[in-house]
Order: sequence, then structure tokens, then C-alpha cells
Amino acid sequence: MSPPSKALPPHLETRLRGLKQVEREQRRRASAVKNRALLQLAEAVQQASEQILAANREDIASLKAETTAAFRDRLTLSPERIAGMITSLNQVAALPDPVGEIVEDRILKNGLRLQRVRAPLGMLFMIFEARPNVILEAFSLAFKAGNVILLRGSSESLATSHEIYKVMDAALGQQALSPSPFFGLEDYDRKLVDALLHRSDLIDVVIPRGGDKLIQMVQKTATMPVIKNDRGLCHAYIDATANLDMALKIVVNGKTQRPGVCNALETVLVHAAIAEQFLPRLFAATDAFSLQWHVDAASHAILKDFARVDLAKPEHWDCEYLDLILNCAVVSGIDQALAHIDRHGSRHSEVIVTANAASAQLFLDEVDAAAVYWNASTRFTDGFALGLGAELGISTQKLHVRGPVGLQELTCPRWIIQGTGQIRD
Amino acid sequence: MSPPSKALPPHLETRLRGLKQVEREQRRRASAVKNRALLQLAEAVQQASEQILAANREDIASLKAETTAAFRDRLTLSPERIAGMITSLNQVAALPDPVGEIVEDRILKNGLRLQRVRAPLGMLFMIFEARPNVILEAFSLAFKAGNVILLRGSSESLATSHEIYKVMDAALGQQALSPSPFFGLEDYDRKLVDALLHRSDLIDVVIPRGGDKLIQMVQKTATMPVIKNDRGLCHAYIDATANLDMALKIVVNGKTQRPGVCNALETVLVHAAIAEQFLPRLFAATDAFSLQWHVDAASHAILKDFARVDLAKPEHWDCEYLDLILNCAVVSGIDQALAHIDRHGSRHSEVIVTANAASAQLFLDEVDAAAVYWNASTRFTDGFALGLGAELGISTQKLHVRGPVGLQELTCPRWIIQGTGQIRD
Repeated sequence: MSPPSKALPPHLETRLRGLKQVEREQRRRASAVKNRALLQLAEAVQQASEQILAANREDIASLKAETTAAFRDRLTLSPERIAGMITSLNQVAALPDPVGEIVEDRILKNGLRLQRVRAPLGMLFMIFEARPNVILEAFSLAFKAGNVILLRGSSESLATSHEIYKVMDAALGQQALSPSPFFGLEDYDRKLVDALLHRSDLIDVVIPRGGDKLIQMVQKTATMPVIKNDRGLCHAYIDATANLDMALKIVVNGKTQRPGVCNALETVLVHAAIAEQFLPRLFAATDAFSLQWHVDAASHAILKDFARVDLAKPEHWDCEYLDLILNCAVVSGIDQALAHIDRHGSRHSEVIVTANAASAQLFLDEVDAAAVYWNASTRFTDGFALGLGAELGISTQKLHVRGPVGLQELTCPRWIIQGTGQIRD
Repeated sequence: MSPPSKALPPHLETRLRGLKQVEREQRRRASAVKNRALLQLAEAVQQASEQILAANREDIASLKAETTAAFRDRLTLSPERIAGMITSLNQVAALPDPVGEIVEDRILKNGLRLQRVRAPLGMLFMIFEARPNVILEAFSLAFKAGNVILLRGSSESLATSHEIYKVMDAALGQQALSPSPFFGLEDYDRKLVDALLHRSDLIDVVIPRGGDKLIQMVQKTATMPVIKNDRGLCHAYIDATANLDMALKIVVNGKTQRPGVCNALETVLVHAAIAEQFLPRLFAATDAFSLQWHVDAASHAILKDFARVDLAKPEHWDCEYLDLILNCAVVSGIDQALAHIDRHGSRHSEVIVTANAASAQLFLDEVDAAAVYWNASTRFTDGFALGLGAELGISTQKLHVRGPVGLQELTCPRWIIQGTGQIRD
């Protein structure tokens, strides 16, 4: 309804208006049609896996020498990662269709029948950096939930993205889903992104997936709603009554199993009563990973003779390292732990390890995060692990969805109201 | 977590940080405490009604001569409107508390127990124009749903707002809810609003209630999520098989019962087969209201001898009049009606009047609006009428909530995950 506020090149304007038209069909597409298309797409990806890997090698070869290992890793596809993409497509096909789900159904005294029925969000716009595997994850979830999606990757993965888009177009075309219910934007001019972020007349929701800078830019610029996949600065609080073997497992898993992801741990807070016992054991358990430690004075007094342990600077407590670096502080008890998390946490995932149910309950109640754990690894905050099938990221905002963005979160209920001529008095 | 990007005056910064502290207590406040406070507040408003009305007369007296009647009406309080505010407070107290509601509870194969539990959104910021009665509606819903709220009205209602804030502070203080879980901003400098809209470190959600300009400004400026209460450009489609008496009732109610609200009708689309019969009857039924008609050529051919009927200009189909003006077009059938609504509708409320169940189903499925009606007045799209108790506006965006924003919509589920030491493989 609102007039376009920034101009797009005419061919792109036409393409997006076409996608908006497809949205009307996509909204009501039968589950069987959608599922068949996803299975077909899984097969097509299987058949094209060599070409996709070759394109990916091209992208990797074009990387600048100074590219970080973490970025290189996120960009790299392997036969295993392609197998993961295929599994995910098959899983999404097998999930129940959220569109049309009746979430409420009641009859008012005046005879009006009220239903709230899940409907697609409409046109999604995902902006992502590196990780070409998110293309299929994002498309499959958006598509199954009845949406159309505009995808815009970063130029570092342009060959890989191009190959994947080609496979998608061909497979969807074979299912008579042409024009495609997605559009992969391959013009990497940043001005286009800026213009698109002003098009709330076309785009219903924007989902940025990438670093702080991207997310802040989208938050500042977008005139349509944003589902924010922000940073994860996750803490483990090891209480005085914690089973220390369990605590070790949970911290080691949270920090080392995949340090580059948002549900990895950055900071461990240890109750003073067990710090002397726990910290040397934690050091030993992580020694093989050559962790760098940034610690408070009390932890330093305990760990000072160990290698790679230095005093934390104030800014360290706010750092999402995404790397083999761990902050550590000794706290006097749960209140201090809660205050630390309230001040430094990013509302993503937080865990208490304790045998004391009252402390656990206090922690679960008080910590304001998308996912709060008692005696389990924060690494479970993810669509697969929580049984949502797949995810389009982890939301740390509080509107619409907290935590993994799955199929259901790509819909919203609307009201269907049936009467026999009722009017308002 | 993100650093403040625009400076606020120190006293306001302190006040808001204080409110953010109150948020932690408010989040977990017991239902009984919240309900008692709302009932107490209802009594306090009753006792202070003379002072509130006097302050309101002051505001009305200060209005410029050129103020529109609609604006004057929105600003004006009466004993009846105050009684409505009191009823609303009592109703919100009686509604179930959404905080802590378990919306999902399951156990994974690995033994993890997953729960999704409703939690408050945090700190809300409502910017409103005129209508001082929204202060108590907004506060009561925000408060009952465990949130704190920052309120900023327009300078035209400053005396009324001041009086209401005073009553609220005193009543909440008596319930030992001091410092108050709300803050009424009485410095009407617009620069403050701009600065506040950049404070996503403090404010979780902003809710603008007012005209197009306000909403566009907020959408452009806010770096935090917005719940948009946008315009309502609602249509009634009168199908060939409609019961014409019912259709008359629904259109007359939708257009004339309260033309200044967003769920009022702006446009009626009439099937060609019944237009000659229906339109003169509709004119007669609305004659007492002296409607202005903007009509297409086919309607004009039927209505040309009637007063106050002129040919519509193209822009009329996109006008939310909020006044006794009606657009009217003759359509060849439901497809043309759907296309018209898709092009000109604002995704608010749309109705079909028909005796044909298949047409009704098509309309309910195809129309992409927050509320879609079959044989009932669009005037029901409102929190009271749909049994939500009260509302904080009607959302026409698709994220988080479509339609009335009630108690539940001022919360969002978070994940509570309990384990016995599970880690991720």
C-alpha cells in the first residue's frame, strides 16, 4: 500500500512484483505439492552435488589470503555438508504443514464463530553471509510454511549460490512451480539491499543472518519487521551443589564442540565454594583444545600457574568470541551469577548446573533468555536439536519468536469470523 | 547490550534505567498482586473522575479553532468514557494471567524436557495521539502481562494525561508498587522521541497509535521491533446471492456506527447482478447520515439521480476516510472483488456477504487480512468485541500478531529446558 520509497532497477522491480504475484498461489499451495517439490529438490541436490562442490572450490580459491579460518570454514561445503542439506530437505518435507492449523476456535454469545488460523507471513527476505548451506534450509522452511523468499548472499559465495539457485529453479520447474517461489539475488551491489530494506510494500519480514555489522545495518535501515538472529553470549553457572563431572561435560561441550556458533559458551561462572576444586579440573579437561582463558582475580589466584590464563579486561565479559577462548569468574552465589548474566548476557541461552532444585527454579524463572537450561548443554538451542526439523536462525529479540525460528514461526495466525448477520451495537 | 546511540537528558536516562530495574520485579509479579492493583486503580479513577474531566476540559479549551471535529472527539472524555475506562480496568483484572502459561511441554528421546512458557516482552514504549483513554488501557494490559511501559502522549492532551498519571502513581504507590512499573513522559520535545526510538538497549517493543505520519516516522526510526497499528481500509463485498437485508445492516453498521475507527468500512463492492436492486436501497438506508458517495461509472449510472454521489477519482480507492464518506464499485463477481481488495486493502478487516458457502470459503481463504468475515460486521475487529478483554490496538503487520493486540500478544514464549547432564554429540 505505501508507495515505493527508493527505486530499484526496472528488471528487479518486475522480478519482485512477479514474486509477489506468486505469493498468492504459494499461500494456498497444498501440502502434498509442497512436500513432493521438497523431495524432488533433495534428489536434484544429490545429483548436482559434484557441480555444487566444484563451484564451492572456486569460491574458496578466490578468498583473500587474510580470510579468517572461521569464515573459510563457514563458506566451505563438503560431501557431508551436502548430505546434511539433503537430510534437512527430506526432514522439512516430513514435518506437519503449519498453514491452516486452527489455533483457536470458539463461539461468542452473539453466535459469531471465531477461528484463528495459521497463515504464511508472505514475502521473506533473507540476507546471509558465507554459509551457502542456509540457502536450502531457508528456502525449504519458507516454502513449506507457504511463503515466498528473496535470498541475498555475500559475494564470497557467489559461485556456490549460483549453482544452488540453478538446481532449485530446475527442480521446482519440473514440479510446475514456475515462476519459482523464490528469487536468488545475484547482483551484489549493496545499494540494492538498502533499497530493498525500504520496500515494506513488497517484503513482509527481513531475516539477516551474519555478523554484528549486518544485523545493525538491517535494524537501522529496514522499514519492515525484522527477525533478528543476533549474537549469543552464553553463560554456564556452576552452583555449589553441582555434580562436577556433569558440570565439566556441559562446559567442555558448550565451549569446544563447535566454538564458532551462537549457542556455544563464552563465560563460565563458578560458585566460590567449589572453584578451587572445579577450575583446575576444567583446565585439565580442556587442555587438549588449547583454550585461551580470560579470568577474574579470584579465578586467577587459582589458575595462575597454568598456561594461557590471563586477567580479563572489562570488555572481555561482553565478547562473543566464537573461538576457543573462555571467560571465567568466581561468584559468591546465584544472585551474583544472575546479576552478571543480566548485565552481560545476550538473551540467547544460559545454563545452571546444580543439584539444588530451588536454585534451579530460581535460575529458570529469573534469567531472561530465549532458552534457559538446567543441567544440559546450551548447544541444544537449535531447530534440529529441539525437534523443529530445521531452523532459519535463533531469535534473540522478544517479539514473535524467541529461540529457533522453525516452520511455525514463519506463519502467524489470522482471524476467520463467521456470522449470520451480526452487527455491532 | 548495544551501547546507547543517542543521548537522553541525564534525569530521563536515570528514570528509564530505574524502570528497566523495575522490569525484573514486574516480570515475576504474582497475578493476585497485579489484579489487586488494577482493581485499586479502577477505584482511584472513579474517585478522581471529576479532576480528570476538569483537566480534560482544560485541554479541550486550549485546542486551536481549526482542530477537526474527529480529533476533538478523540480527545474528549465524558463520564461515560471514564466509566468505560473503569470497566476496562476491572475486566483486565478478571482476565487470566498469560505469564507462565505453558504452551508446549514435551520430552525428547534423549530425556531433555522442553517447555515453552509465556514471558513478558519487557519494556514497552507506547506513543499515542489524542485519546487519553488509551493510557489506562495500555497500562493495564502491559502491567497484567508482566511488562513495564513508557507512555508518551501528544501535547494536546497534556493536562488530562498529567492527571491520569498522577492517579496511577498514587494508586500503585498504595499497593507498594513504587517505583511505578510505568513512566508517563511529560516532556513533549520531539527530539526525545527520536532518541528513545534508538534505545533498543532499554526498550523491547514500540507501539505507535495514531495517524499515518506517526506510524511512518516510528517505522523509519525505531531500531527495536514495532507493533504497528496501521490504517484500516476495509471492504464489504456483497455477492449475487447475498441476503440484501443482511447486507444493508452490515454495510450501514460498518460505515455509520463509528466512522472514525479503523474497522469501519470505506468501500462497498457490489455484484453486478444485484447492484440495481441493492444500491438505491443502500442509499435510502444511509440517507439520514448524509453520506458522501464516491462511485465507479457503473454505480454512477444507477445512483446518478441521488444527491451527494460523484464519480470516484483513482486515489479515492486508497483513502481511509474515517468519516461519513463511502466508496462504491460494481464488480463482475468474486474474482474482481478479490483483486480489488488485494490491490487496495490494508490487510485489516474484510467481509463477504453471501448465501453461497463456496464463495464464502474462497473469500475466507484468499483474502490476506488480519480478520476476514462472512456475514458479519467488520466493526467486531476489536479486543472487547472478540472477547480479549481490552486491546492495545489492531496490528496490520504480519509478524507476532495480526488483529487486536491483547494480553497474550504482550508476551512471547521462551524455552525452559531441563536435563540430567545431556550434551550435544
